[in-house]
Amino acid sequence: MMDNASRPIGVFDSGVGGLTVVRALMERLPMENIVYFGDTARVPYGVKSRNTIEQFTTQIVDFLLKNEVKALVVACNTIAAVAGYRVCKMAGAMPVTDVIAAGAQAALNTTQNGNIGVIATTTTVNSNAYARAIHSKAPQARVLSQAAPLLVPLVEEGWLDHEVTRLTVREYLKPLLAEQIDTLVLGCTHYPLLKPLIMSEAPRLALVDSSTTTADAVALALEENGLLNRNNTAPDYRFYVSDIPLRFQTIGERFLGRSLEQIEMMGLG
Amino acid sequence: MMDNASRPIGVFDSGVGGLTVVRALMERLPMENIVYFGDTARVPYGVKSRNTIEQFTTQIVDFLLKNEVKALVVACNTIAAVAGYRVCKMAGAMPVTDVIAAGAQAALNTTQNGNIGVIATTTTVNSNAYARAIHSKAPQARVLSQAAPLLVPLVEEGWLDHEVTRLTVREYLKPLLAEQIDTLVLGCTHYPLLKPLIMSEAPRLALVDSSTTTADAVALALEENGLLNRNNTAPDYRFYVSDIPLRFQTIGERFLGRSLEQIEMMGLG
Repeated sequence: MMDNASRPIGVFDSGVGGLTVVRALMERLPMENIVYFGDTARVPYGVKSRNTIEQFTTQIVDFLLKNEVKALVVACNTIAAVAGYRVCKMAGAMPVTDVIAAGAQAALNTTQNGNIGVIATTTTVNSNAYARAIHSKAPQARVLSQAAPLLVPLVEEGWLDHEVTRLTVREYLKPLLAEQIDTLVLGCTHYPLLKPLIMSEAPRLALVDSSTTTADAVALALEENGLLNRNNTAPDYRFYVSDIPLRFQTIGERFLGRSLEQIEMMGLG
Repeated sequence: MMDNASRPIGVFDSGVGGLTVVRALMERLPMENIVYFGDTARVPYGVKSRNTIEQFTTQIVDFLLKNEVKALVVACNTIAAVAGYRVCKMAGAMPVTDVIAAGAQAALNTTQNGNIGVIATTTTVNSNAYARAIHSKAPQARVLSQAAPLLVPLVEEGWLDHEVTRLTVREYLKPLLAEQIDTLVLGCTHYPLLKPLIMSEAPRLALVDSSTTTADAVALALEENGLLNRNNTAPDYRFYVSDIPLRFQTIGERFLGRSLEQIEMMGLG
């Protein structure tokens, strides 16, 4: 049994998108060990039902708990939206940080006019989780949500600066811009890769990328719980996925921003 | 135990796309009982690895065999491409029909100049299954394949006649048209819904929709094996899926072309 601070942080996602959160954690907390789980065999979650997502989430959290993690980071908006409560219950006293809570707080810190737009997967939008998280802190804020299911496949196709992607983004943003939003939450870990394109389409919008704000929230939670790792100059990173498809390495490295090693297959369910 | 002819045909797919094959079977063989399984909890397969697809396929075929089917129809191009052999081994003497064999034959019956284009998912294209199926019958044919991973999400978004879809189709077809194809195999059960758009983009192409040719192949296989159901004026249709997400009914009915009743949830794995 390791001492508490040296135990790894458990980060999980339905696929590879959560690696953007890992990347932010590596930069923000360079002494922490990290275990990542991406459910690439069953990705995407964003079009699936609440029950199914809860069941898959339970299996992932079980796996991470067996790996003796000291904290859990829900790096998937869809999981945070519909199974956050389940994760908290399983975690007991262990700190749990999720991308929606962090993104909601960041949006409130950013908006000037109180009109906040959210783009996310269909399931996340239908869960209304961002609106609930924002309204719990600022009941007067207006939250305008738009499901944007094509953006994940466009990012995975690598069409980050393609006319098709530009038209798709324009179509999804139209109803939000009509409502005078000044802040846009990128409510899916794939979307930060589209930041340059979104900024060129809507230059006056402030974009909230929850990966960095999540890393900040994790740092705070670890500190409050006396779990910061302060003496680790060679952090250990382990990446588990339930499937290693073609082009996995390429896509994963696009999200992680560095080479992706020590990947292991781990089937669940 | 039912007599052999009255046992149902087992049709399966990674999701709802295979309902286009069910629709063609209902029209071609109106006296047959049908059991359908769609793995909606783990869809899509087209971006996953061969091992994972084989494992999921084994679970589905097990389920259908327990339902005492008399024949198996692989309505998913990706499964046919990488796990067809596994299905045949599990089926034993039972007839197995798949969309790739049927589509390959139809393409050969259609082409005039011997240049056949195929659009399909990434995994199907990488498996080279269409080229193998076509070359086994016509070694001199030229097969040009193009992975088209964005078309499934575009169909599921319902953007069947949208500028974004038109540009995407144009981009995917460009290298195929440059090779003078005269026939295009729609190598994924989602694509037939894009027929009008593809025809307007490439009016001189003959399109091969494998759902109808698969239904013809099933009819022939049942007849040859003495398994045709000839006295059934009230056929029984059962639809099993591993998840029932939002909008499932709407999307499913778009593929089936009629109202979708008697859907049951059935988790696998």
